[in-house]
Amino acid sequence: MNFYHFTVPQLIRTLGQVHQWLDKAQKYAEQKKFDVNVLLTARLAPDQFHFTRQVQVITDNAKGTVARLAGVQAPAFEDTEKTVDELRARIDKTIAFLKTLTPEQFQGAAERTITLPFLPGQGIKGSDYLVAFALPNFYFHAATAYSILRHNGVDVGKGDFLGELPFFALPSGT
Amino acid sequence: MNFYHFTVPQLIRTLGQVHQWLDKAQKYAEQKKFDVNVLLTARLAPDQFHFTRQVQVITDNAKGTVARLAGVQAPAFEDTEKTVDELRARIDKTIAFLKTLTPEQFQGAAERTITLPFLPGQGIKGSDYLVAFALPNFYFHAATAYSILRHNGVDVGKGDFLGELPFFALPSGT
Repeated sequence: MNFYHFTVPQLIRTLGQVHQWLDKAQKYAEQKKFDVNVLLTARLAPDQFHFTRQVQVITDNAKGTVARLAGVQAPAFEDTEKTVDELRARIDKTIAFLKTLTPEQFQGAAERTITLPFLPGQGIKGSDYLVAFALPNFYFHAATAYSILRHNGVDVGKGDFLGELPFFALPSGT
Repeated sequence: MNFYHFTVPQLIRTLGQVHQWLDKAQKYAEQKKFDVNVLLTARLAPDQFHFTRQVQVITDNAKGTVARLAGVQAPAFEDTEKTVDELRARIDKTIAFLKTLTPEQFQGAAERTITLPFLPGQGIKGSDYLVAFALPNFYFHAATAYSILRHNGVDVGKGDFLGELPFFALPSGT
């Protein structure tokens, strides 16, 4: 088990859930007969990124995390999305990039020095980056996007956040 | 690096941040001259756990995650907290329990079959439990508690969520 297994399949899983939140948001807007753009521009505080920006950041965090740990270049996206379909396409492009990566590319990731564009002159060890920054930050924005929808009445619950999990039946008698 | 390093220090870090959110919530209530209990019982949706319950769940998730992965018994808490001080005490008790654990106790955790009280007859592999359930679920409730405060005007930002990170200065010329 290397850092691939801590990132790629799980980031794909959560990005797939964001896709489903978009479906629920669109359905809710249609049912209630309001413009879904109201949800896309909603936020929980006036100085917070709105929902669309949260989804842009979620995808940036997903591709940035794996690119930094694997030492490859992530595709650049232009942050021009204005519609649900455009957000869906951005998520799909991110998932497609994640699917190009292999476990071999993550060998040595724990020891790699990671740098971030907004912190020039500073570095962080790959293991610290993953555990203390990349994962908390990814879920922070995912939960914030989810909360914006939930606060506005979209029918999302914990299962929509976690997605389908690989539970299995225990042998009887255990 | 075993599952200790993916859980214990980072859960302690985030629990310490929740402590700081409580300090900020209390200070904000004092400044604005309202009862801090308004924040403790606030939620973002009518069918969501209020802030106090979120903090109870955050601590339950922290101690439950490490106890399951290490194969030890977590201390039981009674869910009777009604005040900021009582929530602080619960966080402190959780951190104290986490600090009793050692990396050796997590050997083999990735292959351990984890069971959950609310899913009788089912199991999940330790590695799947950590990556796909325990960490997303922990951060989900942490971000939700944070969002409840942020939505109500408490001055919390990303730095309050992540806490202090082990960045280091790069050698000059890099």
